[in-house]
Amino acid sequence: MSVVSLQEDISVAYLGPAGSYTHEAAQERFVGNNFAYKPYASISDIFDAVESRRTTCGIVPFENSTFGSVVTTLDCFIGSKLRISAEAYLPVHHNLLSKSKLSELKKVYSHPQALGQCKKWLATHLPGVALVEVASTSYAAELAKEDPEAAAIASLMCAELYSLNVIERDIEDGKNNTTRFFILGGSTSTRTGDDKTYFLFTVDHRKPGALCDALKVFKDHEINLTKIDSRPSQQRPWHYAFFVEFQGHLEDENVQGALEKLKELCPNAKELGSYPNQRPKEDTY
Amino acid sequence: MSVVSLQEDISVAYLGPAGSYTHEAAQERFVGNNFAYKPYASISDIFDAVESRRTTCGIVPFENSTFGSVVTTLDCFIGSKLRISAEAYLPVHHNLLSKSKLSELKKVYSHPQALGQCKKWLATHLPGVALVEVASTSYAAELAKEDPEAAAIASLMCAELYSLNVIERDIEDGKNNTTRFFILGGSTSTRTGDDKTYFLFTVDHRKPGALCDALKVFKDHEINLTKIDSRPSQQRPWHYAFFVEFQGHLEDENVQGALEKLKELCPNAKELGSYPNQRPKEDTY
Repeated sequence: MSVVSLQEDISVAYLGPAGSYTHEAAQERFVGNNFAYKPYASISDIFDAVESRRTTCGIVPFENSTFGSVVTTLDCFIGSKLRISAEAYLPVHHNLLSKSKLSELKKVYSHPQALGQCKKWLATHLPGVALVEVASTSYAAELAKEDPEAAAIASLMCAELYSLNVIERDIEDGKNNTTRFFILGGSTSTRTGDDKTYFLFTVDHRKPGALCDALKVFKDHEINLTKIDSRPSQQRPWHYAFFVEFQGHLEDENVQGALEKLKELCPNAKELGSYPNQRPKEDTY
Repeated sequence: MSVVSLQEDISVAYLGPAGSYTHEAAQERFVGNNFAYKPYASISDIFDAVESRRTTCGIVPFENSTFGSVVTTLDCFIGSKLRISAEAYLPVHHNLLSKSKLSELKKVYSHPQALGQCKKWLATHLPGVALVEVASTSYAAELAKEDPEAAAIASLMCAELYSLNVIERDIEDGKNNTTRFFILGGSTSTRTGDDKTYFLFTVDHRKPGALCDALKVFKDHEINLTKIDSRPSQQRPWHYAFFVEFQGHLEDENVQGALEKLKELCPNAKELGSYPNQRPKEDTY
Protein backbone atom coordinates (compact mmCIF):
# COMPACT_ATOMS: atom_id res chain seq x y z
CA MET A 1 0.00 0.00 0.00
CA SER A 2 1.47 3.36 -1.02
CA VAL A 3 1.82 6.37 1.28
CA VAL A 4 -0.87 8.18 -0.69
CA SER A 5 -3.47 5.48 -0.17
CA LEU A 6 -2.58 5.28 3.52
CA GLN A 7 -3.17 9.02 3.82
CA GLU A 8 -6.57 8.60 2.24
CA ASP A 9 -7.73 5.66 4.32
CA ILE A 10 -10.67 7.59 5.73
CA SER A 11 -12.57 9.93 3.45
CA VAL A 12 -14.91 12.63 4.74
CA ALA A 13 -17.60 14.12 2.46
CA TYR A 14 -18.34 17.82 3.14
CA LEU A 15 -20.37 20.64 1.58
CA GLY A 16 -18.06 22.37 -0.89
CA PRO A 17 -16.39 24.09 -2.54
CA ALA A 18 -13.31 24.24 -0.30
CA GLY A 19 -13.39 26.80 2.51
CA SER A 20 -17.03 26.36 3.56
CA TYR A 21 -17.83 26.28 7.27
CA THR A 22 -18.60 22.56 6.88
CA HIS A 23 -15.05 22.13 5.56
CA GLU A 24 -13.70 23.94 8.63
CA ALA A 25 -15.83 21.79 10.94
CA ALA A 26 -14.54 18.64 9.17
CA GLN A 27 -10.92 19.72 9.67
CA GLU A 28 -11.52 20.45 13.36
CA ARG A 29 -13.26 17.13 13.90
CA PHE A 30 -10.99 14.88 11.85
CA VAL A 31 -7.44 15.86 12.72
CA GLY A 32 -4.52 13.98 11.20
CA ASN A 33 -2.97 12.87 7.93
CA ASN A 34 -5.12 9.86 7.27
CA PHE A 35 -8.24 11.86 6.39
CA ALA A 36 -9.12 12.86 2.84
CA TYR A 37 -11.74 15.64 2.70
CA LYS A 38 -14.01 15.40 -0.34
CA PRO A 39 -16.16 18.36 -1.40
CA TYR A 40 -19.72 17.72 -2.60
CA ALA A 41 -22.07 20.25 -4.21
CA SER A 42 -25.08 19.58 -1.98
CA ILE A 43 -26.14 18.04 1.31
CA SER A 44 -28.09 15.39 -0.56
CA ASP A 45 -24.91 14.42 -2.47
CA ILE A 46 -23.15 13.92 0.88
CA PHE A 47 -25.89 11.53 2.05
CA ASP A 48 -25.59 9.64 -1.27
CA ALA A 49 -21.80 9.42 -1.06
CA VAL A 50 -21.87 7.92 2.44
CA GLU A 51 -24.82 5.64 1.75
CA SER A 52 -23.18 4.21 -1.39
CA ARG A 53 -19.87 3.89 0.52
CA ARG A 54 -18.01 6.19 -1.84
CA THR A 55 -16.81 7.93 1.34
CA THR A 56 -16.27 6.56 4.84
CA CYS A 57 -18.35 9.26 6.46
CA GLY A 58 -19.85 12.69 5.87
CA ILE A 59 -20.39 15.93 7.76
CA VAL A 60 -23.54 18.03 7.32
CA PRO A 61 -24.75 21.25 8.97
CA PHE A 62 -27.71 20.54 11.28
CA GLU A 63 -28.61 23.82 12.99
CA ASN A 64 -27.36 27.33 13.62
CA SER A 65 -27.86 29.04 16.97
CA THR A 66 -29.28 32.14 15.27
CA PHE A 67 -31.01 30.78 12.18
CA GLY A 68 -32.23 27.40 13.30
CA SER A 69 -32.42 24.00 11.64
CA VAL A 70 -30.96 23.26 8.22
CA VAL A 71 -34.08 21.85 6.62
CA THR A 72 -32.28 20.20 3.71
CA THR A 73 -30.44 17.98 6.21
CA LEU A 74 -33.70 17.06 7.95
CA ASP A 75 -35.33 16.22 4.60
CA CYS A 76 -32.43 13.98 3.61
CA PHE A 77 -32.88 11.88 6.78
CA ILE A 78 -36.47 11.00 5.78
CA GLY A 79 -35.42 8.74 2.91
CA SER A 80 -32.03 7.65 4.27
CA LYS A 81 -30.78 4.66 6.23
CA LEU A 82 -27.76 6.56 7.56
CA ARG A 83 -27.06 6.90 11.25
CA ILE A 84 -25.54 9.85 13.07
CA SER A 85 -22.33 8.87 14.86
CA ALA A 86 -21.35 12.24 16.38
CA GLU A 87 -22.17 15.93 16.66
CA ALA A 88 -19.77 18.89 16.39
CA TYR A 89 -20.05 22.62 17.17
CA LEU A 90 -18.25 25.39 15.28
CA PRO A 91 -18.32 29.07 16.30
CA VAL A 92 -19.02 30.90 13.03
CA HIS A 93 -17.34 34.23 12.34
CA HIS A 94 -18.15 35.96 9.08
CA ASN A 95 -15.72 38.14 7.15
CA LEU A 96 -16.06 40.53 4.22
CA LEU A 97 -13.63 39.37 1.52
CA SER A 98 -12.83 41.10 -1.78
CA LYS A 99 -10.20 42.02 -4.37
CA SER A 100 -11.28 45.69 -3.94
CA LYS A 101 -11.89 48.34 -1.29
CA LEU A 102 -15.10 48.80 0.68
CA SER A 103 -15.93 52.02 -1.23
CA GLU A 104 -15.66 50.26 -4.62
CA LEU A 105 -18.15 47.46 -3.87
CA LYS A 106 -21.39 47.16 -5.82
CA LYS A 107 -22.51 43.71 -4.65
CA VAL A 108 -22.00 41.19 -1.88
CA TYR A 109 -22.33 37.45 -2.52
CA SER A 110 -23.11 34.94 0.21
CA HIS A 111 -25.36 32.19 1.46
CA PRO A 112 -28.79 33.54 2.59
CA GLN A 113 -28.05 32.48 6.20
CA ALA A 114 -24.76 34.42 6.25
CA LEU A 115 -26.37 37.51 4.69
CA GLY A 116 -29.07 37.32 7.35
CA GLN A 117 -26.52 36.92 10.15
CA CYS A 118 -24.72 40.12 9.02
CA LYS A 119 -27.85 42.14 8.24
CA LYS A 120 -27.15 45.03 10.65
CA TRP A 121 -23.49 45.36 9.66
CA LEU A 122 -24.40 45.44 5.97
CA ALA A 123 -27.13 48.06 6.50
CA THR A 124 -24.66 50.28 8.38
CA HIS A 125 -21.54 49.89 6.23
CA LEU A 126 -22.85 48.99 2.77
CA PRO A 127 -26.31 50.57 2.45
CA GLY A 128 -27.75 50.22 -1.05
CA VAL A 129 -25.22 47.59 -2.17
CA ALA A 130 -26.85 44.56 -3.87
CA LEU A 131 -26.93 41.41 -1.72
CA VAL A 132 -26.76 38.32 -3.93
CA GLU A 133 -27.75 34.94 -2.46
CA VAL A 134 -25.74 31.92 -3.62
CA ALA A 135 -25.56 28.23 -2.62
CA SER A 136 -22.61 28.40 -0.20
CA THR A 137 -20.25 30.93 1.36
CA SER A 138 -17.25 29.33 -0.37
CA TYR A 139 -18.99 29.53 -3.76
CA ALA A 140 -19.55 33.23 -2.96
CA ALA A 141 -15.78 33.59 -2.47
CA GLU A 142 -15.17 31.89 -5.82
CA LEU A 143 -17.49 34.43 -7.48
CA ALA A 144 -15.88 37.42 -5.68
CA LYS A 145 -12.49 36.31 -6.97
CA GLU A 146 -13.68 36.84 -10.57
CA ASP A 147 -15.62 40.06 -9.99
CA PRO A 148 -13.70 43.20 -8.92
CA GLU A 149 -16.91 45.03 -7.94
CA ALA A 150 -17.99 42.26 -5.59
CA ALA A 151 -17.25 40.99 -2.09
CA ALA A 152 -18.14 37.71 -0.40
CA ILE A 153 -19.15 37.00 3.17
CA ALA A 154 -17.20 33.87 4.03
CA SER A 155 -14.59 32.26 6.30
CA LEU A 156 -10.97 33.40 6.71
CA MET A 157 -10.02 30.08 5.08
CA CYS A 158 -11.73 31.35 1.92
CA ALA A 159 -9.60 34.53 1.91
CA GLU A 160 -6.53 32.35 1.57
CA LEU A 161 -8.00 29.77 -0.82
CA TYR A 162 -9.43 32.33 -3.25
CA SER A 163 -6.71 35.03 -2.86
CA LEU A 164 -9.09 37.64 -1.45
CA ASN A 165 -8.33 40.46 0.98
CA VAL A 166 -10.02 40.56 4.36
CA ILE A 167 -11.85 43.91 4.25
CA GLU A 168 -13.43 43.40 7.68
CA ARG A 169 -13.40 40.55 10.21
CA ASP A 170 -16.22 39.23 12.42
CA ILE A 171 -19.08 41.15 10.84
CA GLU A 172 -21.81 38.84 12.24
CA ASP A 173 -24.48 40.66 14.25
CA GLY A 174 -24.83 37.99 16.97
CA LYS A 175 -21.58 37.36 18.77
CA ASN A 176 -22.37 33.80 19.89
CA ASN A 177 -23.11 32.56 16.41
CA THR A 178 -22.50 28.78 16.36
CA THR A 179 -23.32 26.06 13.86
CA ARG A 180 -23.90 22.49 14.86
CA PHE A 181 -22.98 19.59 12.54
CA PHE A 182 -23.73 15.87 12.38
CA ILE A 183 -21.22 13.22 11.37
CA LEU A 184 -22.91 10.55 9.27
CA GLY A 185 -21.67 6.97 8.95
CA GLY A 186 -18.55 5.52 10.48
CA SER A 187 -18.84 3.49 13.67
CA THR A 188 -21.79 4.07 16.02
CA SER A 189 -21.10 5.79 19.33
CA THR A 190 -21.06 3.79 22.52
CA ARG A 191 -22.81 5.08 25.63
CA THR A 192 -20.90 7.73 27.62
CA GLY A 193 -23.58 8.69 30.16
CA ASP A 194 -24.04 12.14 28.60
CA ASP A 195 -25.56 11.31 25.22
CA LYS A 196 -28.31 12.52 22.95
CA THR A 197 -30.47 10.57 20.51
CA TYR A 198 -32.20 11.77 17.37
CA PHE A 199 -35.46 10.13 16.33
CA LEU A 200 -37.92 10.51 13.44
CA PHE A 201 -41.62 9.59 13.31
CA THR A 202 -44.87 10.42 11.61
CA VAL A 203 -48.29 10.12 13.27
CA ASP A 204 -51.68 9.17 11.88
CA HIS A 205 -52.99 12.72 11.64
CA ARG A 206 -56.59 11.57 11.10
CA LYS A 207 -56.57 10.50 14.76
CA PRO A 208 -57.13 13.51 17.07
CA GLY A 209 -54.40 13.92 19.63
CA ALA A 210 -52.02 11.53 17.87
CA LEU A 211 -49.07 13.94 18.10
CA CYS A 212 -49.76 14.57 21.80
CA ASP A 213 -49.98 10.80 22.41
CA ALA A 214 -46.61 10.28 20.73
CA LEU A 215 -44.92 13.05 22.73
CA LYS A 216 -46.47 11.83 25.97
CA VAL A 217 -44.50 8.57 25.53
CA PHE A 218 -41.29 10.50 26.23
CA LYS A 219 -42.72 12.03 29.38
CA ASP A 220 -44.02 8.64 30.58
CA HIS A 221 -40.49 7.24 30.24
CA GLU A 222 -38.89 10.26 31.94
CA ILE A 223 -37.05 11.30 28.80
CA ASN A 224 -36.24 14.99 28.37
CA LEU A 225 -36.86 16.33 24.85
CA THR A 226 -34.26 18.91 23.86
CA LYS A 227 -35.49 19.76 20.36
CA ILE A 228 -38.45 19.14 18.06
CA ASP A 229 -38.84 19.92 14.36
CA SER A 230 -41.43 19.11 11.75
CA ARG A 231 -41.07 18.82 7.98
CA PRO A 232 -43.42 17.77 5.18
CA SER A 233 -43.45 13.95 5.22
CA GLN A 234 -42.94 13.78 1.42
CA GLN A 235 -45.92 11.41 1.34
CA ARG A 236 -48.90 13.76 0.97
CA PRO A 237 -49.61 17.48 1.45
CA TRP A 238 -49.91 18.80 5.06
CA HIS A 239 -48.68 15.52 6.51
CA TYR A 240 -45.56 15.90 8.62
CA ALA A 241 -42.49 14.03 9.75
CA PHE A 242 -41.43 14.93 13.32
CA PHE A 243 -37.82 15.01 14.45
CA VAL A 244 -37.12 14.85 18.17
CA GLU A 245 -33.83 15.00 20.00
CA PHE A 246 -33.66 13.85 23.59
CA GLN A 247 -31.21 13.16 26.40
CA GLY A 248 -30.21 9.51 26.56
CA HIS A 249 -28.72 6.69 24.48
CA LEU A 250 -30.36 3.98 22.39
CA GLU A 251 -28.83 1.45 24.80
CA ASP A 252 -30.65 3.00 27.80
CA GLU A 253 -33.51 0.90 29.11
CA ASN A 254 -36.03 3.75 29.31
CA VAL A 255 -35.11 4.88 25.77
CA GLN A 256 -35.67 1.35 24.46
CA GLY A 257 -39.03 1.21 26.22
CA ALA A 258 -40.13 4.56 24.83
CA LEU A 259 -39.09 3.79 21.26
CA GLU A 260 -40.80 0.40 21.35
CA LYS A 261 -44.03 2.11 22.42
CA LEU A 262 -43.58 4.85 19.79
CA LYS A 263 -43.13 2.31 17.03
CA GLU A 264 -46.46 0.76 18.05
CA LEU A 265 -48.17 4.18 17.87
CA CYS A 266 -46.53 5.64 14.77
CA PRO A 267 -46.68 4.28 11.21
CA ASN A 268 -43.13 5.41 10.42
CA ALA A 269 -40.62 5.67 13.21
CA LYS A 270 -36.87 5.23 13.14
CA GLU A 271 -33.84 6.06 15.25
CA LEU A 272 -31.27 8.29 13.55
CA GLY A 273 -28.53 7.63 16.06
CA SER A 274 -27.08 8.31 19.51
CA TYR A 275 -24.00 10.48 20.06
CA PRO A 276 -22.06 11.98 22.98
CA ASN A 277 -23.16 15.50 23.97
CA GLN A 278 -20.54 17.93 22.64
CA ARG A 279 -22.32 21.20 23.40
CA PRO A 280 -19.82 23.80 24.68
CA LYS A 281 -20.28 24.13 28.46
CA GLU A 282 -20.93 27.89 28.37
CA ASP A 283 -24.00 27.27 26.23
CA THR A 284 -25.52 24.72 28.61
CA TYR A 285 -27.97 25.67 31.34
CA MET B 1 -62.90 61.96 -1.25
CA SER B 2 -61.60 61.34 -4.76
CA VAL B 3 -62.13 58.14 -6.73
CA VAL B 4 -58.45 57.31 -6.37
CA SER B 5 -58.50 57.46 -2.62
CA LEU B 6 -61.70 55.42 -2.53
CA GLN B 7 -60.02 52.75 -4.65
CA GLU B 8 -57.15 52.67 -2.23
CA ASP B 9 -59.19 52.48 0.93
CA ILE B 10 -57.68 49.13 1.88
CA SER B 11 -54.01 48.54 1.22
CA VAL B 12 -52.44 45.09 1.22
CA ALA B 13 -48.69 44.66 1.74
CA TYR B 14 -47.18 41.71 -0.18
CA LEU B 15 -43.74 40.28 -0.93
CA GLY B 16 -42.59 41.93 -4.14
CA PRO B 17 -41.64 42.75 -6.77
CA ALA B 18 -44.91 42.42 -8.69
CA GLY B 19 -45.74 38.93 -9.94
CA SER B 20 -44.60 36.93 -6.91
CA TYR B 21 -46.81 34.09 -5.70
CA THR B 22 -47.67 36.22 -2.67
CA HIS B 23 -48.94 38.89 -5.09
CA GLU B 24 -51.09 36.26 -6.81
CA ALA B 25 -52.43 35.03 -3.46
CA ALA B 26 -53.24 38.64 -2.49
CA GLN B 27 -55.19 39.19 -5.70
CA GLU B 28 -57.15 35.95 -5.19
CA ARG B 29 -57.93 36.78 -1.61
CA PHE B 30 -58.73 40.50 -1.96
CA VAL B 31 -60.97 40.78 -5.02
CA GLY B 32 -62.37 44.20 -6.01
CA ASN B 33 -61.42 47.74 -6.85
CA ASN B 34 -60.98 49.07 -3.35
CA PHE B 35 -57.74 47.19 -2.71
CA ALA B 36 -54.31 48.67 -3.33
CA TYR B 37 -51.55 46.06 -3.41
CA LYS B 38 -48.23 47.37 -2.13
CA PRO B 39 -44.99 45.45 -2.81
CA TYR B 40 -42.38 45.16 -0.04
CA ALA B 41 -38.83 43.81 -0.37
CA SER B 42 -38.98 41.39 2.57
CA ILE B 43 -41.35 39.56 4.90
CA SER B 44 -40.03 41.61 7.80
CA ASP B 45 -40.91 44.84 5.92
CA ILE B 46 -44.49 43.54 5.56
CA PHE B 47 -44.76 43.00 9.32
CA ASP B 48 -43.38 46.53 9.89
CA ALA B 49 -45.78 48.10 7.40
CA VAL B 50 -48.85 46.55 9.03
CA GLU B 51 -47.65 47.13 12.59
CA SER B 52 -46.96 50.83 11.91
CA ARG B 53 -50.32 51.07 10.09
CA ARG B 54 -48.77 52.14 6.81
CA THR B 55 -50.95 49.42 5.27
CA THR B 56 -54.30 48.01 6.40
CA CYS B 57 -53.12 44.45 6.23
CA GLY B 58 -50.41 42.20 4.86
CA ILE B 59 -50.06 38.77 3.30
CA VAL B 60 -47.09 36.52 4.01
CA PRO B 61 -46.19 32.97 2.91
CA PHE B 62 -46.44 30.55 5.85
CA GLU B 63 -45.74 27.06 4.51
CA ASN B 64 -45.42 25.09 1.30
CA SER B 65 -46.76 21.55 0.99
CA THR B 66 -43.44 20.31 -0.42
CA PHE B 67 -40.85 22.54 1.27
CA GLY B 68 -42.38 23.23 4.63
CA SER B 69 -42.55 26.29 6.83
CA VAL B 70 -41.29 29.70 5.79
CA VAL B 71 -38.97 30.32 8.71
CA THR B 72 -38.64 34.07 8.10
CA THR B 73 -42.37 34.40 8.74
CA LEU B 74 -42.13 32.38 11.96
CA ASP B 75 -39.20 34.50 13.15
CA CYS B 76 -41.09 37.73 12.50
CA PHE B 77 -43.95 36.57 14.77
CA ILE B 78 -41.57 36.27 17.75
CA GLY B 79 -41.11 40.03 18.10
CA SER B 80 -44.46 41.15 16.69
CA LYS B 81 -47.82 42.09 18.18
CA LEU B 82 -49.68 41.33 14.94
CA ARG B 83 -52.53 38.86 14.81
CA ILE B 84 -53.43 36.50 11.96
CA SER B 85 -56.93 37.20 10.66
CA ALA B 86 -57.15 34.57 7.89
CA GLU B 87 -55.33 31.86 5.96
CA ALA B 88 -55.26 31.33 2.18
CA TYR B 89 -54.07 28.47 -0.07
CA LEU B 90 -52.60 28.90 -3.55
CA PRO B 91 -51.70 26.00 -5.88
CA VAL B 92 -48.22 26.90 -7.15
CA HIS B 93 -47.26 26.11 -10.75
CA HIS B 94 -43.77 27.02 -11.86
CA ASN B 95 -42.86 28.08 -15.38
CA LEU B 96 -39.60 28.55 -17.23
CA LEU B 97 -39.57 32.12 -18.58
CA SER B 98 -36.96 33.72 -20.85
CA LYS B 99 -36.24 36.05 -23.77
CA SER B 100 -34.37 33.16 -25.44
CA LYS B 101 -34.78 29.50 -26.43
CA LEU B 102 -34.13 26.52 -24.15
CA SER B 103 -30.96 25.61 -26.09
CA GLU B 104 -29.46 29.10 -25.59
CA LEU B 105 -29.77 29.19 -21.80
CA LYS B 106 -26.68 29.35 -19.59
CA LYS B 107 -28.34 30.11 -16.24
CA VAL B 108 -31.65 29.90 -14.43
CA TYR B 109 -32.60 32.41 -11.73
CA SER B 110 -35.14 31.66 -9.03
CA HIS B 111 -35.90 31.47 -5.34
CA PRO B 112 -34.19 28.46 -3.66
CA GLN B 113 -37.59 26.91 -2.89
CA ALA B 114 -38.68 27.11 -6.55
CA LEU B 115 -35.35 25.70 -7.78
CA GLY B 116 -35.78 22.83 -5.31
CA GLN B 117 -39.36 22.21 -6.40
CA CYS B 118 -38.23 21.87 -10.07
CA LYS B 119 -35.05 19.90 -9.37
CA LYS B 120 -35.92 16.83 -11.45
CA TRP B 121 -37.17 18.85 -14.43
CA LEU B 122 -34.00 20.96 -14.43
CA ALA B 123 -31.72 17.92 -14.20
CA THR B 124 -33.50 16.34 -17.19
CA HIS B 125 -33.93 19.37 -19.47
CA LEU B 126 -31.12 21.73 -18.47
CA PRO B 127 -28.26 19.58 -17.16
CA GLY B 128 -25.13 21.60 -16.44
CA VAL B 129 -26.89 24.98 -16.62
CA ALA B 130 -26.06 27.27 -13.64
CA LEU B 131 -28.86 27.59 -11.08
CA VAL B 132 -28.72 31.03 -9.42
CA GLU B 133 -30.63 31.56 -6.18
CA VAL B 134 -32.24 35.00 -5.69
CA ALA B 135 -34.61 36.53 -3.11
CA SER B 136 -37.92 36.02 -4.96
CA THR B 137 -39.28 34.44 -8.12
CA SER B 138 -40.43 37.82 -9.41
CA TYR B 139 -36.98 39.33 -8.85
CA ALA B 140 -35.65 36.36 -10.87
CA ALA B 141 -38.00 37.37 -13.71
CA GLU B 142 -36.70 40.96 -13.51
CA LEU B 143 -33.13 39.64 -13.88
CA ALA B 144 -34.04 37.31 -16.77
CA LYS B 145 -35.53 40.28 -18.63
CA GLU B 146 -32.10 41.95 -18.70
CA ASP B 147 -30.04 38.84 -19.46
CA PRO B 148 -30.55 37.06 -22.82
CA GLU B 149 -28.65 33.96 -21.65
CA ALA B 150 -30.87 33.52 -18.59
CA ALA B 151 -34.29 32.15 -17.70
CA ALA B 152 -36.36 32.54 -14.55
CA ILE B 153 -38.60 30.06 -12.79
CA ALA B 154 -41.64 32.12 -11.88
CA SER B 155 -45.40 32.59 -12.26
CA LEU B 156 -47.26 33.15 -15.54
CA MET B 157 -48.06 36.62 -14.18
CA CYS B 158 -44.33 37.36 -14.36
CA ALA B 159 -44.20 36.37 -18.05
CA GLU B 160 -46.63 39.18 -18.79
CA LEU B 161 -45.20 41.75 -16.35
CA TYR B 162 -41.58 41.31 -17.46
CA SER B 163 -42.25 40.58 -21.17
CA LEU B 164 -40.79 37.08 -21.07
CA ASN B 165 -41.73 34.07 -23.17
CA VAL B 166 -43.11 30.96 -21.51
CA ILE B 167 -40.56 28.29 -22.54
CA GLU B 168 -42.30 25.56 -20.53
CA ARG B 169 -45.32 25.51 -18.19
CA ASP B 170 -45.83 23.57 -14.94
CA ILE B 171 -42.27 22.35 -14.48
CA GLU B 172 -42.69 21.61 -10.75
CA ASP B 173 -41.81 18.02 -9.78
CA GLY B 174 -44.67 17.55 -7.29
CA LYS B 175 -48.06 18.04 -8.88
CA ASN B 176 -49.94 19.03 -5.69
CA ASN B 177 -47.57 21.85 -4.86
CA THR B 178 -49.48 24.37 -2.70
CA THR B 179 -48.41 27.37 -0.65
CA ARG B 180 -50.32 28.53 2.38
CA PHE B 181 -50.42 32.21 3.37
CA PHE B 182 -51.44 34.19 6.44
CA ILE B 183 -53.28 37.51 6.32
CA LEU B 184 -51.96 39.83 9.03
CA GLY B 185 -53.95 42.65 10.57
CA GLY B 186 -57.42 43.78 9.59
CA SER B 187 -60.36 42.64 11.72
CA THR B 188 -60.08 39.45 13.77
CA SER B 189 -62.09 36.44 12.61
CA THR B 190 -65.21 35.45 14.48
CA ARG B 191 -65.86 31.82 15.32
CA THR B 192 -67.24 29.66 12.47
CA GLY B 193 -67.10 26.22 14.11
CA ASP B 194 -64.28 25.07 11.80
CA ASP B 195 -61.38 27.24 12.91
CA LYS B 196 -57.70 26.95 13.64
CA THR B 197 -55.58 28.89 16.12
CA TYR B 198 -51.87 29.63 16.04
CA PHE B 199 -49.96 29.95 19.31
CA LEU B 200 -46.37 30.68 20.32
CA PHE B 201 -44.54 29.76 23.54
CA THR B 202 -41.14 29.09 25.01
CA VAL B 203 -40.48 26.68 27.88
CA ASP B 204 -37.98 26.76 30.71
CA HIS B 205 -35.54 24.29 29.16
CA ARG B 206 -33.59 23.84 32.39
CA LYS B 207 -36.65 21.95 33.68
CA PRO B 208 -36.69 18.35 32.38
CA GLY B 209 -39.88 17.46 30.57
CA ALA B 210 -41.00 21.11 30.26
CA LEU B 211 -41.85 20.76 26.58
CA CYS B 212 -43.80 17.54 27.22
CA ASP B 213 -45.69 19.27 30.07
CA ALA B 214 -46.65 22.13 27.77
CA LEU B 215 -47.85 19.84 25.00
CA LYS B 216 -49.78 17.67 27.44
CA VAL B 217 -51.96 20.71 28.23
CA PHE B 218 -53.47 20.45 24.75
CA LYS B 219 -54.25 16.77 25.22
CA ASP B 220 -55.77 17.40 28.66
CA HIS B 221 -58.12 19.95 27.08
CA GLU B 222 -58.99 17.67 24.14
CA ILE B 223 -57.37 19.98 21.62
CA ASN B 224 -55.97 18.44 18.44
CA LEU B 225 -52.58 19.82 17.39
CA THR B 226 -52.27 20.08 13.61
CA LYS B 227 -48.75 21.47 13.33
CA ILE B 228 -45.69 22.17 15.48
CA ASP B 229 -42.54 24.12 14.62
CA SER B 230 -39.55 25.31 16.59
CA ARG B 231 -37.22 28.23 15.94
CA PRO B 232 -34.33 29.79 17.89
CA SER B 233 -35.96 32.00 20.55
CA GLN B 234 -33.66 34.94 19.71
CA GLN B 235 -32.88 35.13 23.44
CA ARG B 236 -29.93 32.75 23.86
CA PRO B 237 -28.31 29.92 21.88
CA TRP B 238 -30.10 26.54 21.76
CA HIS B 239 -33.22 28.00 23.36
CA TYR B 240 -36.33 27.61 21.22
CA ALA B 241 -39.68 29.22 20.52
CA PHE B 242 -42.41 26.68 19.72
CA PHE B 243 -45.24 27.37 17.30
CA VAL B 244 -48.33 25.19 17.52
CA GLU B 245 -51.43 25.22 15.38
CA PHE B 246 -54.54 23.49 16.63
CA GLN B 247 -58.22 22.99 15.82
CA GLY B 248 -60.45 25.45 17.66
CA HIS B 249 -61.02 29.16 18.20
CA LEU B 250 -59.74 31.52 20.90
CA GLU B 251 -63.39 31.99 21.95
CA ASP B 252 -63.81 28.24 22.65
CA GLU B 253 -63.99 27.38 26.34
CA ASN B 254 -61.47 24.51 26.18
CA VAL B 255 -59.04 26.67 24.19
CA GLN B 256 -59.27 29.41 26.80
CA GLY B 257 -58.69 26.89 29.58
CA ALA B 258 -55.65 25.42 27.81
CA LEU B 259 -54.06 28.76 27.03
CA GLU B 260 -54.56 29.99 30.59
CA LYS B 261 -52.75 26.88 31.85
CA LEU B 262 -49.99 27.25 29.24
CA LYS B 263 -49.36 30.85 30.22
CA GLU B 264 -48.84 29.66 33.81
CA LEU B 265 -46.31 27.06 32.63
CA CYS B 266 -44.44 29.03 29.98
CA PRO B 267 -42.40 32.21 30.43
CA ASN B 268 -43.39 33.59 27.03
CA ALA B 269 -46.69 32.56 25.54
CA LYS B 270 -48.96 34.42 23.18
CA GLU B 271 -51.82 33.76 20.80
CA LEU B 272 -51.15 34.69 17.17
CA GLY B 273 -54.78 34.52 16.08
CA SER B 274 -57.75 32.33 15.13
CA TYR B 275 -58.97 31.97 11.55
CA PRO B 276 -61.49 29.87 9.62
CA ASN B 277 -60.09 26.65 8.13
CA GLN B 278 -59.62 27.23 4.38
CA ARG B 279 -57.77 24.04 3.51
CA PRO B 280 -59.00 22.69 0.17
CA LYS B 281 -61.27 19.68 0.83
CA GLU B 282 -59.26 17.27 -1.34
CA ASP B 283 -56.23 17.84 0.91
CA THR B 284 -58.10 17.00 4.13
CA TYR B 285 -58.18 13.52 5.60
